[in-house]
Amino acid sequence: MTQRARATLLEAEHIVGYTTYIDLIPDDVTEAADELYDTPMCGEVSRTEEAVDRALAGNDVAIVGSGDPNVYALGGLALEIIESKGATASALDFEVVPGVPAAQSCAARVGAPLVNDSVSISLSDHLTPMADIESRLHAVAAEGFTIAIYNPWSRKRRENFETACEILLEHRPADTPVGVVHGAGRDDEAVEIVELGELKSLGETDLIDMTTTLLVGNEETYVWDGQMITPRGYESKYDY
Amino acid sequence: MTQRARATLLEAEHIVGYTTYIDLIPDDVTEAADELYDTPMCGEVSRTEEAVDRALAGNDVAIVGSGDPNVYALGGLALEIIESKGATASALDFEVVPGVPAAQSCAARVGAPLVNDSVSISLSDHLTPMADIESRLHAVAAEGFTIAIYNPWSRKRRENFETACEILLEHRPADTPVGVVHGAGRDDEAVEIVELGELKSLGETDLIDMTTTLLVGNEETYVWDGQMITPRGYESKYDY
Repeated sequence: MTQRARATLLEAEHIVGYTTYIDLIPDDVTEAADELYDTPMCGEVSRTEEAVDRALAGNDVAIVGSGDPNVYALGGLALEIIESKGATASALDFEVVPGVPAAQSCAARVGAPLVNDSVSISLSDHLTPMADIESRLHAVAAEGFTIAIYNPWSRKRRENFETACEILLEHRPADTPVGVVHGAGRDDEAVEIVELGELKSLGETDLIDMTTTLLVGNEETYVWDGQMITPRGYESKYDY
Repeated sequence: MTQRARATLLEAEHIVGYTTYIDLIPDDVTEAADELYDTPMCGEVSRTEEAVDRALAGNDVAIVGSGDPNVYALGGLALEIIESKGATASALDFEVVPGVPAAQSCAARVGAPLVNDSVSISLSDHLTPMADIESRLHAVAAEGFTIAIYNPWSRKRRENFETACEILLEHRPADTPVGVVHGAGRDDEAVEIVELGELKSLGETDLIDMTTTLLVGNEETYVWDGQMITPRGYESKYDY
């Protein structure tokens, strides 16, 4: 958590969020708030609406998430709801407090897998059609991007994961390193570096579920001493 | 700065970095270190080598950057240098401390421009051939990605910026919103939301230089009340 996020939460009168994320906030921060409002997953719209209503009533409200508010998160939804209620962001002193995206916190756990031009893609087809997701995967896998994959697997979308593995294998060798980070920062955290060719079979294990982030290397990525390394390209410019 | 980054720097005996970034660290943190070692820009390899040598000599060394060590930064180079010296990451207790990438800290300043599948691309052809950069821009601009552009302009690569603007305009309407964030967090910070069609002409102004990050919206991104909003797609799923 950034120092700014902590300071913002300490100043907030109401803290609103998904129950799991509220539970991850240190006690001294939640105890400083007048009110906590948490709801389970899938209540994003009603929860954010509640947060905006409380702000419109004159309270200083913080909506919490787990990574950055711009990465598959509620920054935009909050603005859309403010707009739909005929209020303005400026009147509410609306601000987005940036954070560390899962791509970055998970990448750090396997070394330096991203480094160069990189892309984040979610395999959830809840809000984006699977045809678009497939087309995006083809486009970036064919170029040299490293790829962070969010929401890789759920019981309802087992096929999306398998399709994604197949698309990646059309463009990249089977021995391409893939960092698999499950439950980063939680009690059930597990980290492994695997090969792209074996990724699909891991969909049947506990390692890959909705709390997992995958970090797919590019053709230059290699594994050394338990670390994934995507060279930045300095070695072609300098002798060292 | 995250709380973990601050704690890590406070524990470090030596802090190594680009002069500008060392200057941005709070005084109480730098004063707690035994030694600071800073060099100007372009000394990345020799500076990182110096950091690794100091660690091999038994010191607790922190290499600092301005965003996240995986985003156009030195995480990978540090590992490559450790490897080249015949040492190991595990023997040195090497770890990457994640941070907030410029894409996120800049996006927060213009609202919620990224939100969905997103890509980071650098226009610097110092370490990546311009032909690859152009091909990547075509690939992602043709899909629905929001695009964070790093290193958009320098006197030596004015043409790269102009070419990038032209490629984006081949795939997206001229009124596509673009967030322009210059010198985020510095004294000369400037933030504007412009249209893609006018972006190229801004290359001749002080707003766009090597400290600027550009946030290019997708076809759904709009501007409201001074904020850039890329809808996450909830509105198609729910009534609110």
